[in-house]
Amino acid sequence: MRNETEIIDLVTKRLGGQRGGLPEGVRLDWLRLGLGDDAAVINTGGRRRSTGSPTDDLVLSCDQFLEGVHFLPSLHQPDAIGYKALARATSDLAAMGARPRFFLVTLALQPSRTGEWLEQFAGGIRRAAREFGMTLIGGDTSASPKIAISITVGGVTRLDHALTRSGARAGDSVFVSGTLGGAQLGLACLTARPKLTRNQIPKESLERHLRPRIRLALGQWLAGSGEVRTKIASAAIDISDGLSTDLHHICHSSRVDARIFAPQIPTVNIPPAIRRLPRMRRINPFELALHGGEDYELLFTVPRRLAARIPSHYKGVKLSRIGEIVARPRQKKSARVELVDSAGRAIPLKPQGWDSFRRDR
Amino acid sequence: MRNETEIIDLVTKRLGGQRGGLPEGVRLDWLRLGLGDDAAVINTGGRRRSTGSPTDDLVLSCDQFLEGVHFLPSLHQPDAIGYKALARATSDLAAMGARPRFFLVTLALQPSRTGEWLEQFAGGIRRAAREFGMTLIGGDTSASPKIAISITVGGVTRLDHALTRSGARAGDSVFVSGTLGGAQLGLACLTARPKLTRNQIPKESLERHLRPRIRLALGQWLAGSGEVRTKIASAAIDISDGLSTDLHHICHSSRVDARIFAPQIPTVNIPPAIRRLPRMRRINPFELALHGGEDYELLFTVPRRLAARIPSHYKGVKLSRIGEIVARPRQKKSARVELVDSAGRAIPLKPQGWDSFRRDR
Repeated sequence: MRNETEIIDLVTKRLGGQRGGLPEGVRLDWLRLGLGDDAAVINTGGRRRSTGSPTDDLVLSCDQFLEGVHFLPSLHQPDAIGYKALARATSDLAAMGARPRFFLVTLALQPSRTGEWLEQFAGGIRRAAREFGMTLIGGDTSASPKIAISITVGGVTRLDHALTRSGARAGDSVFVSGTLGGAQLGLACLTARPKLTRNQIPKESLERHLRPRIRLALGQWLAGSGEVRTKIASAAIDISDGLSTDLHHICHSSRVDARIFAPQIPTVNIPPAIRRLPRMRRINPFELALHGGEDYELLFTVPRRLAARIPSHYKGVKLSRIGEIVARPRQKKSARVELVDSAGRAIPLKPQGWDSFRRDR
Repeated sequence: MRNETEIIDLVTKRLGGQRGGLPEGVRLDWLRLGLGDDAAVINTGGRRRSTGSPTDDLVLSCDQFLEGVHFLPSLHQPDAIGYKALARATSDLAAMGARPRFFLVTLALQPSRTGEWLEQFAGGIRRAAREFGMTLIGGDTSASPKIAISITVGGVTRLDHALTRSGARAGDSVFVSGTLGGAQLGLACLTARPKLTRNQIPKESLERHLRPRIRLALGQWLAGSGEVRTKIASAAIDISDGLSTDLHHICHSSRVDARIFAPQIPTVNIPPAIRRLPRMRRINPFELALHGGEDYELLFTVPRRLAARIPSHYKGVKLSRIGEIVARPRQKKSARVELVDSAGRAIPLKPQGWDSFRRDR
């Protein structure tokens, strides 16, 4: 039995590619970035007739959203499933700094859900598509005993301006947007037994779980895709699996290590009324922030000379400097991330975020 | 309960698009063809620096391949599942006349299949990818109690040279490549009870079912994407659901009717040893050809002035003229396809091909 990273490595290897770079035998004239990042980047290599400037890079990514694995129809309304399906996929475009353009959907569902359920599901996708400025350009449907949704999203960035996981360098600062752990808190409240009342569940955390806010504007700004033409971030990823896992992804792709400071991690506020409930005692805001997935905040690195450009908030979203990138000793193959507490003690931080293949799920 | 066409119509409508043309509010500068065809067509609008000619159109399509719906792990080897998953998706590029370039895969599977099964599955995809000249550029994996594969494929055509379903006009001839019904015959033999021996099963039909040959070279030639720069076909589709259903798709998109001639339909040869078996008595080559899916042959229409250019074989693949496109009376909204027998009698041909939502499955 393999974990998700091992599976991806195996498939990549078997298909003759390699992670973190261009697959073997690839025609470099169109593929700019292959497997192993949040998205692939291609360019058809033209120039605009009017200005002579190169045409945009096209950024492509795919994501699946499965009944029983990622959501439960008994817990989640079809509208929220539709919204979140497109939002999570599009979050990969945010992590690349791309402007979303289009998406393709394959949808498998029970014949009994092709009435009202499907109407509401489609309504949820539409809300997300309008919000992100995307057009549905392709799809495929099939009957199936379980709902399976798979979405490919496409967006654009200026040539060579896409943010990757592989650009972090020693000395860069590590930043994160918003607060972490809210989506997991929402899920924990939703699945608590005995049930919490709707009033007990913190609204914001429930929203974070059901309708994640993705950081498109921030990503575009960090990529220099907007009015500011400078690429500010050296690397970026969206936090879908959890901070501990996603920071390892950046370190792995960039061949560096990292150190993050516990007191600087923006944790979610757990209302006292929730904290006092015996069935919620095991919920720890710090654990949620480190290993809880689905916040879809951006984790990014910024070179020292540009770090002063990062404001405390960008368009209302808090930005926190949580650590720094450090060089990896030559003989070490795997990435090491350290968590430093307020007393200056460092402990290794293992990737313990979401992995659907892990045994303990 | 809706059928597949109704579901696609509903989702399209709910998402603010329209079939057979450009969705509402679409930026025409990049989207050339939206929903309702075998694939979407986009163009980033550049010109090549060297020649000044426009850059290629990018053709994108998605397809799903599901355990229990499209294949059974007890019947189908993982290598064949991998090969066919990519082949069926790429057949949509053949139907558009595109040259395949890349693909993205989402894969859900049981943790117990992440060993040998996954290795062989990846091997099957690789064989197909090499054969078609494609590179894997993105993917996502997840644990799941059933296998679900979803693939997005991308290819290129010369600007405005993609073949669509909507270009058929009254007077055009209707052609089909190869023979029809072989894949369904292979499936029928594989699932016959009591079981047939491997020797009894016609090898070619089994191959057609397990490892469909897709018509990339033919599609590119018909689109004028190769050495011949003229677009020869006015419309095209790949026969994935069955001739009766896919011809209706062309007629629907082109707002025309069609007439096909029974004696000219290239049916599969059923070996006498098979025909004599009581459990295979209900198998009728003509029914297989009309309504059997998964042959992945091309069904295409050719304007009268170009019909003489169609050879009896193209690169070893037989091409048969099976009928003609006729004008649709103004007051009629839905397409009518007639089947004409050797005595000249015409009967209406309903779309009776594959639809995973149909009740009788």
